[in-house]
This record gives sequence, C-alpha cells and structure tokens, in this order.
Amino acid sequence: MSQPSDKALVPFVSVDNMMRLVHHVGVETMLQELAAYVEADFRRWELFDKTPRVASHSDVGVIELMPTSDGEAYGFKYVNGHPKNTSEGLQTVTAFGLLADVYTGYPVLLTEMTLLTALRTAATSAMAAKFLAPKSSKTMAMIGNGAQSEFQTLAMKAIVGIENVRLYDTDSAASEKCARNLKGLGVNVTICTSPEQAMQGAQILTTCTADKKNATILSDNMVGAGVHINAIGGDCPGKTELASGILERADVFVEFPPQTRIEGEIQQMPADFEVTELWEVIEGTKTGRRDDKQITLFDGVGFAIEDFSALRYVRDSIKGTDFCDMLDMLADPDDPRDLFGMLQRSKVPA
Amino acid sequence: MSQPSDKALVPFVSVDNMMRLVHHVGVETMLQELAAYVEADFRRWELFDKTPRVASHSDVGVIELMPTSDGEAYGFKYVNGHPKNTSEGLQTVTAFGLLADVYTGYPVLLTEMTLLTALRTAATSAMAAKFLAPKSSKTMAMIGNGAQSEFQTLAMKAIVGIENVRLYDTDSAASEKCARNLKGLGVNVTICTSPEQAMQGAQILTTCTADKKNATILSDNMVGAGVHINAIGGDCPGKTELASGILERADVFVEFPPQTRIEGEIQQMPADFEVTELWEVIEGTKTGRRDDKQITLFDGVGFAIEDFSALRYVRDSIKGTDFCDMLDMLADPDDPRDLFGMLQRSKVPA
Repeated sequence: MSQPSDKALVPFVSVDNMMRLVHHVGVETMLQELAAYVEADFRRWELFDKTPRVASHSDVGVIELMPTSDGEAYGFKYVNGHPKNTSEGLQTVTAFGLLADVYTGYPVLLTEMTLLTALRTAATSAMAAKFLAPKSSKTMAMIGNGAQSEFQTLAMKAIVGIENVRLYDTDSAASEKCARNLKGLGVNVTICTSPEQAMQGAQILTTCTADKKNATILSDNMVGAGVHINAIGGDCPGKTELASGILERADVFVEFPPQTRIEGEIQQMPADFEVTELWEVIEGTKTGRRDDKQITLFDGVGFAIEDFSALRYVRDSIKGTDFCDMLDMLADPDDPRDLFGMLQRSKVPA
Repeated sequence: MSQPSDKALVPFVSVDNMMRLVHHVGVETMLQELAAYVEADFRRWELFDKTPRVASHSDVGVIELMPTSDGEAYGFKYVNGHPKNTSEGLQTVTAFGLLADVYTGYPVLLTEMTLLTALRTAATSAMAAKFLAPKSSKTMAMIGNGAQSEFQTLAMKAIVGIENVRLYDTDSAASEKCARNLKGLGVNVTICTSPEQAMQGAQILTTCTADKKNATILSDNMVGAGVHINAIGGDCPGKTELASGILERADVFVEFPPQTRIEGEIQQMPADFEVTELWEVIEGTKTGRRDDKQITLFDGVGFAIEDFSALRYVRDSIKGTDFCDMLDMLADPDDPRDLFGMLQRSKVPA
C-alpha cells in the first residue's frame, strides 16, 4: 500500500511525549514561554472568535468543546468534568486538543491536554499576577494543595519572582504531597495549619480548592489591604470560594465576562457587577494595580483562548523534535473524486 | 516509566485501519450494518441532544464540530469544507470523530471519518430509499459521479436491491472512473451523455454534484411521476441542485428541519414549506410512500446523529480485532491530586 502524503499525517503529542517536552524545555522555562504565548494572544484579544463552550450535561458530569480561532489557526479543546470519577479511580478531568490550519481546514496538531491545561492555567495565573500583584511580591499563600498547586507555585516563581510558598489544605496529606514535590526546586515551603496562618506575610493569595459547592474558603476579615488574590477554584456554576464581601472590596479582573459571570466567583454578584477585562490591562487601555492598598482579584475560570495559546506553543515547540507521533488520520486519495478507488486499491489480494 | 492504565488509552482507527475494516467486513455488508445502526438511532430520535453544528467560517472555507449524545455515549465529528483545496492538491473535506462515555467523560474511540462519512452518507441514503422508493426499484440514475457515487450505488444495491445504475456527469472522466470502480461488483453500469438519458427507466434519481452554487441539475419537466429522488448534493447555504418546481410536486423528507432549511434543497422554499421528518416515517407515525404516482424526495444534508451511529458501529466492530492503535492520550496519575508527581517521576535521570 502507498504511504499517505505528509499533509494527511497529523502530529500527535501523547502524554508521554508531553512529559518529555516539559523535561526537555524545563518546567519553569516552559511556564514562562507559555505565559508569553498567552500574553501575546491577550494582546490581540479582539480578533478572536469568542464562542461560548459547547456543553453536553448529564447527571454525573459534563463534556465540553471549547473552540476558537484567530483567523489563521483554529483550535478546540475537549474536556470533561466528572467529580465522582475520583472515587472510581478515574480522573475528574481529562482533556485533549486540536489545532487546524484555517486556510486548508487540515488538522496540524493533536495533543493530550490534561498536563497542558495544568501548565497553561498556572502560566495564565502568573501572567495576570505580573500585571496585578504588588511589585516585588515574594510570598504566596496557596490554599488548596491539589493537582494545580505545584504548577501555580512554580509559575509564580518563574514569572513573578515568588520565593516563599505557604501551603494550606483541609487534608494535610495534600500539603505534604505538594511540599514533597516542590523539594529542591528553589522555593521555601511552609506547611500551615490554617488559612489565616498561610496568609501571614503573603502578597499573593491563590485559592484552588476542590469544593464542589459555594464555599467560603476566604472570609472577608481574612483579607488585608494591598494583596492580590488569584482565585482559580471557582470554575463552574454553583462553585465559589470567596465571601462576597471580598469581591465588593476588590477590583475584579476577568478573562471573558459572559463566561465568568456564569462560572466564576462573580456568579455571586449582580449581573452588572463591575469587572475589568484582563486583556485591556495588558494592552494598557485599563488600569490594573493603582496603589498599594488596593485588593486586586483575578477571577480565573479558564478560557478557550488560553488553550489556543497552549496549542500554538506545542505546535511550535515540537518542530524538529521527536516529541510526537504521526497519525494517519486524514484520507488522502491521489484524485479527490476517487475515494472508492483508494479503498479498492488498498485491498490485499487474497 | 510505568505504562498508562487501560482506561487512559484511546483506541484510534487510522485511515489504513478503516480500509482494513471495510475489506474485512466487506463493503456491502458494512453498508448494510451501518444502515441498521443509523435506522436504530432514527427510531430513538427524540432522546438525542440535537444541537446545531458549531461552525467557524473563513473566506475560504468552514470548520465545523458536530456533537450529539444519546445519554450513554457522546460523539462529535470534526469536518472542514474548503472547495478551493482541490486545485491545491488537497481534499475539500477531511473529517475525524470521537466517541466518549457519558458516565466517565473518557474518550473511547478516535477515528478517521473521511471514509466513514462517505459510507454513512450512502447507508443513510439507501435506508431512506428503503422506506420511500417504489417497491422493487431496480434502476438508479446517478447524476454526479464524484467521490460519493460508488458508495451510493453499492448501498442502493445492498439495501434496496438496485441492479442497474445509469451514470451521468458533466465530466465524462468522472463517469468512466465510477464505471471502472464498479466493474465486477454486480451492478449493470451504463454511462449516459445527458441527465435525461440517465433517468430513462430509473425509479431512483440520486443527485450528488459538486456545484458550489444554486444550480438546476434536475429541472421540473425532467422528473416523471412515481420516482424517488435522493438529493444529497445540496448541503450548504447557497448550494442546491433541484428546480423549485420539483420540490412543489414532491413530498419532501428531511433529517432535522432546522438544519435542512438552511443547508438543503428546501433553502429555496418559504420557511413554512411542508416537510416530513424521516424518523417519523421509520417509526411509523407518518406516511412515507402513499402511492405509485407520488414523487418522494429525500433532501439529505447529513446530520450529527448519523455520524454518531457510524462511531457506535466502528466502536463495536473493532472489538477483539487489531484494526486500531492505542493512543496514550489521557494523563493518568495514580493519585489524581498528584499530576505534578507523575510528571516528576517521568524524568529520565541525567
């Protein structure tokens, strides 16, 4: 049988190859480079197709497609959310993504996105903090020490310059896991026994807990003047982490308001609650941090454009490497009208 | 490095493996089996999520995601349409699809769908004809002898009992290609020099031309009483093949009216033009063919549920075979909270 042509083969980055890519680049460098790609796409925010997620809900979870396009490339992420999976030994969230060439419609990259999403989420948080957190922030409180916690810590180190992280989780085993993973990576780690203790001396407060309901991880009196809050655990309807009093005192920055009003911390607030779009701060048309008393809050829920940036980054990073396999995914008859002939000629004589 | 668990591996059917599957099952048997899967899903039409396609348009083409779910499985197809591709040596349409388990959100199948779409389109046409065409139809006129023509012919043979096909195309090389491909496959083939000649003695008229505009492939006076028209070339806004007079004389059957009114032959007609949903005929709640003078018309545009049926079929057919490769597409840490630990442990010591 003749081999398919190059254009009919789609580079595929497996989980194994994604891990090899991370180690090859270095996790902190990769977070920095990802943040630069995300920032570049936030700077051209207005030219993107911004469609809502296409969600298919069931009693036990949701499957979503998150497409977007910048006019040259088209990307989408498949992602599920099934909280009950953990108790069955499965992941709550799995994800993969695809990038295609808008001009031909041909896919140019298929990749795992469970790891990549963790990386892009941390890179986006740190990019937001670069624009919003107090200058010379050195200490972060990390409330919630699950799968995101190490990525958040290393991104804040690499991109913002954090030197100390203070961990708190209702399950101390999670904090111990996080501390163990961060050992030797150049961050001073302190395990704390209360959120209040974790927040002592911290300029950045990151909340990323797995609570599946409206919970008050941070109450109003816990948050002092001048801090930056990086709230990334509120990411679906009915799930929030902050007391509404904090939102009233803070200046709130969001990715895409129509999505954040449904999924983010601000779902607690009236529909006309004032928010600033992060891309406008990055572009310089809106003010981010005004003074050292201001509480800034990044209400991050994760948006399709960040996945798109991550897909672009992987496409560019694997060029000339062997961190991908080529998938024979697109039928490629010599004569486009002769699909049946291609099928017939593939038959091995009996 | 430890191997990913079984559930983290997604079976992938490449173009090569899809061709092997077709030859293993036999193309006519596969068309029959696909038609049975499509028919089974049309019989439970009401329980499906029926969302419109999610389309991303550009100056030169469109990229679409077509998702649907029956509550147990979730499927989507990625498909592009780029008419200008042919002149650049590329396919106008490429497609792939994914099936996932609604209960876990885990993908269970990734497959090429360029070939599979050709097969499901032909199977759906023949299934519709089984319910709508005159009993004992033996002859089909095939107007437009491109990539669909052989599949349509063999599906009508296998499912409806067609013995003769009469080919017409504005490009006689296309008819010759089709005749050559059908040689020895048990159908009497006649190449004709006009649509009128092709239609002589035919009970079924299939139109599937590549015209990219509103064209009149069949004019009103060409169509006699009693025939079944299988019109599958009108499949996007601005592309139709039949004179409106034919639509007025015929009883028109469609897949999903909101989509067909935009993409099908009936885009020429008023928004309240009467149509019958094909699933209701199959279910027995609406009448299909009433008498032998009636013109029945299947205005087929291709709907997500047919792709879903095809994905289900492939998932079931590859069980216990080697017609797939296992893709390491889903990250699978032993402890879901320890994604970073999985990444660290994958590092090959220097």
